[in-house]
Amino acid sequence: MVTVDINCDMGESFGNWTMGRDAEVMPYITSANIAGGFHAGDPHVMRETVELAVEHDVGIGVHPGLPDKMGFGRRKMDATPQELRDYVTYQLGALSAFADQHGGSLQHVKPHGAMYSMLSESPDHARAVMEGMLAVDSDLIYLATDMNIYEVAQEYDDLRAVFEGYVDIRYDTDRSLIVEKEVVPKDPEAVADRFVSIVTDGVVEAANGDEIEVPAQSICIHGDGPNAVELLETIHDRVEEHGIEIAPLTEVV
Amino acid sequence: MVTVDINCDMGESFGNWTMGRDAEVMPYITSANIAGGFHAGDPHVMRETVELAVEHDVGIGVHPGLPDKMGFGRRKMDATPQELRDYVTYQLGALSAFADQHGGSLQHVKPHGAMYSMLSESPDHARAVMEGMLAVDSDLIYLATDMNIYEVAQEYDDLRAVFEGYVDIRYDTDRSLIVEKEVVPKDPEAVADRFVSIVTDGVVEAANGDEIEVPAQSICIHGDGPNAVELLETIHDRVEEHGIEIAPLTEVV
Amino acid sequence: MVTVDINCDMGESFGNWTMGRDAEVMPYITSANIAGGFHAGDPHVMRETVELAVEHDVGIGVHPGLPDKMGFGRRKMDATPQELRDYVTYQLGALSAFADQHGGSLQHVKPHGAMYSMLSESPDHARAVMEGMLAVDSDLIYLATDMNIYEVAQEYDDLRAVFEGYVDIRYDTDRSLIVEKEVVPKDPEAVADRFVSIVTDGVVEAANGDEIEVPAQSICIHGDGPNAVELLETIHDRVEEHGIEIAPLTEVV
Amino acid sequence: MVTVDINCDMGESFGNWTMGRDAEVMPYITSANIAGGFHAGDPHVMRETVELAVEHDVGIGVHPGLPDKMGFGRRKMDATPQELRDYVTYQLGALSAFADQHGGSLQHVKPHGAMYSMLSESPDHARAVMEGMLAVDSDLIYLATDMNIYEVAQEYDDLRAVFEGYVDIRYDTDRSLIVEKEVVPKDPEAVADRFVSIVTDGVVEAANGDEIEVPAQSICIHGDGPNAVELLETIHDRVEEHGIEIAPLTEVV
Repeated sequence: MVTVDINCDMGESFGNWTMGRDAEVMPYITSANIAGGFHAGDPHVMRETVELAVEHDVGIGVHPGLPDKMGFGRRKMDATPQELRDYVTYQLGALSAFADQHGGSLQHVKPHGAMYSMLSESPDHARAVMEGMLAVDSDLIYLATDMNIYEVAQEYDDLRAVFEGYVDIRYDTDRSLIVEKEVVPKDPEAVADRFVSIVTDGVVEAANGDEIEVPAQSICIHGDGPNAVELLETIHDRVEEHGIEIAPLTEVV
Repeated sequence: MVTVDINCDMGESFGNWTMGRDAEVMPYITSANIAGGFHAGDPHVMRETVELAVEHDVGIGVHPGLPDKMGFGRRKMDATPQELRDYVTYQLGALSAFADQHGGSLQHVKPHGAMYSMLSESPDHARAVMEGMLAVDSDLIYLATDMNIYEVAQEYDDLRAVFEGYVDIRYDTDRSLIVEKEVVPKDPEAVADRFVSIVTDGVVEAANGDEIEVPAQSICIHGDGPNAVELLETIHDRVEEHGIEIAPLTEVV
Repeated sequence: MVTVDINCDMGESFGNWTMGRDAEVMPYITSANIAGGFHAGDPHVMRETVELAVEHDVGIGVHPGLPDKMGFGRRKMDATPQELRDYVTYQLGALSAFADQHGGSLQHVKPHGAMYSMLSESPDHARAVMEGMLAVDSDLIYLATDMNIYEVAQEYDDLRAVFEGYVDIRYDTDRSLIVEKEVVPKDPEAVADRFVSIVTDGVVEAANGDEIEVPAQSICIHGDGPNAVELLETIHDRVEEHGIEIAPLTEVV
Repeated sequence: MVTVDINCDMGESFGNWTMGRDAEVMPYITSANIAGGFHAGDPHVMRETVELAVEHDVGIGVHPGLPDKMGFGRRKMDATPQELRDYVTYQLGALSAFADQHGGSLQHVKPHGAMYSMLSESPDHARAVMEGMLAVDSDLIYLATDMNIYEVAQEYDDLRAVFEGYVDIRYDTDRSLIVEKEVVPKDPEAVADRFVSIVTDGVVEAANGDEIEVPAQSICIHGDGPNAVELLETIHDRVEEHGIEIAPLTEVV
């Protein structure tokens, strides 16, 4: 048996504004990356999302973002390593208190949007964030979206890191993800094929047909995709025959 | 020997805007109520204030406020008990992570401004906040600014609560505090006299000369008062002769 | 011929979060109440909504709210008359600049949510806001949601005010609106009947069957209702036979 | 006689947090750059600052910033030209409404901090902002902090632009300003000498002794400098003997 985690960004509603299909998607995943109130989310949304995760026995992670709700945390800004460390610490602690209230505990950290890009481009920023989370709780797992960040995480003996792969969008040959102009429904069988390929062989077919290495222990699904639930159902239908077990991050790391 | 805690609101700067004299006052107090980023404070200010508290071995508390920076958390708003509970949980968790990073831990919770008034006027709101903090960590102490709230806290067997008194502003005979139109320097000897009176006898002279009961185990000093440091020095000079020991909340509760 | 304006709240999206069906509804209305960036809206949303209004020759109004995005401006807060006046002035000016850019100009002011309730309950607050808008531009029309506010507006000789009625939710016999627990599609014919009744006779049937007076010169439609477009189409189909002309606020005042 | 404007950043307080010495400085200047509520300022502060400017017959300008109060608008962010245009339009309109209320009108636009840097580095961003302000009101003057932006402004026949110089901090030989690590009081006579030199001869001595060209029609004084009022008094004492008249932007452009 090979194990893999399925993670999904969650809790990105804000006040009266709804985003995503958290309640529909939660039953199919093992780790939730919950917005920390900076790029999205607020105390009520965070509590409700934690309750939903606890109900479905899903690992609770924080998805910290830049303090830019108007730009949904997608605009890089000239913030220092210490500033990013403080932003992550703040959001991590806030979410952790809700997890504590509902008998859970914080499992992982996965930075969002432009904050993730800043960490990927600057090892100093990545180190500041990682050292910050280690100083709060050395059991936290860093969920790494690209190899730059994953390699920085390897510098820390006591930091557990997991590399994540994508199956509902395509890779370029350099393992960068191809951003889509318009989000369309995906072919469930093709998505499930890529899932099986990454999990069992550590490789996937890039958009141009090349086979590339994606040594992922967690697969990220876009929960707001138009047919996200269908994709997740198809993946779940296919795992048994391939000897794959879907398990939380703490078991795959 | 009788013990008493001295607490002070701290960390109320925001971004480039400075408020208070935290560095000057911290050496003289035993508990710091640190703003949680809603009415004042931000992740950087919170971290720096926690560092200062740890350096001076001062108990770290959160001073959560309403989400109203423009009004400094001083305007009551129609928020539900659950909303206040979620706001306190969020800010409590955020500050707690900074305390963890610096080898400290969260000691107490003291709501700020209009949030405090809302809790004082509505037991349902007070209960929601208290149950929220108990659900995160039952070791947390509730620092109660008036008797209404203190009595609600007594409903919970596992909630430790401390009642606080004031010596740098005056009481009315009904134990309400007399808000000053203009903040002026206070007579250090008179302030120290009131401090000794409350701590040793549990009574103080109200503004009209009546003696009223103030059964406080902690005294709140306004750290932004024009001669706050002088007041604190005078208090410290006077405690030994009266057999008073200044000690953190955890020792007076 | 009798004329009536149809107004609708618009521009209540924020950043990446979408709310309402502005593009679908705009062709059927004559006045748009556009959120000013406090309870909802942001500079980009405001510009795009103004462009849409200009394209459909719809009168541009500001829909100012309290500074409480997390609560969507629906929580009353202890703000002074001067504070509300300043909030309305700020949002009014901001929207006005976008109207200027697109060859339009600001037509009216209609406060949102809890701000509206505060004005209805306190004539001092209502006067402050009205005097504020008059001081900016005495051609602005005040769109009044209830009779309390409408009567305050009558105190000012130079302030044009319009009273608005509702047809897609029901009135109680005291002319208060009955808030619905759940928003459901409405019967288009019944809605159109109420529209014709208010516009031609100034009366409408309350929920209990009583006939009540609603002397409205503008009808507010909830643009985010599940069948808002169908309701608007049915109204438009019915007006000609009843000698009703739908016209902007400036023509009905 | 040669005329020159003196401008100063104003209205940078926020809620309960005070910054600058607006009331002391306002009597000595002819143009105020008033924060628009994004990096600093709020509706109340803006109104009060406008009132102060009107009282002293000082030209009212908007000092728009990035939506980043926590960073005081000093952190560049990946915002598009259209986004900056919308931010400036919003703040410009908001301030304009307060000016209207007090019998004034908006005179000029001077972007703040990181927004200014972004315009200086990207002509596309500068053009978007300039076209935005022209579309609102073609009488508005653009107050340009460096030559890059001033040159972009020259592309527009109908845009009046004024270049500003600095006398309370020093220039490098390439006409860049030397940022100070610590803000110290300045020698009033030296500052006044530089003022006279720029105004009468269009040149000033750089920090290394070289003479450089500074063809400024307005001089910016840092109102929060420790001896800003003394500097302004000394300048005012010196202008008559040198045939210099201090006059608002509209007269020097």
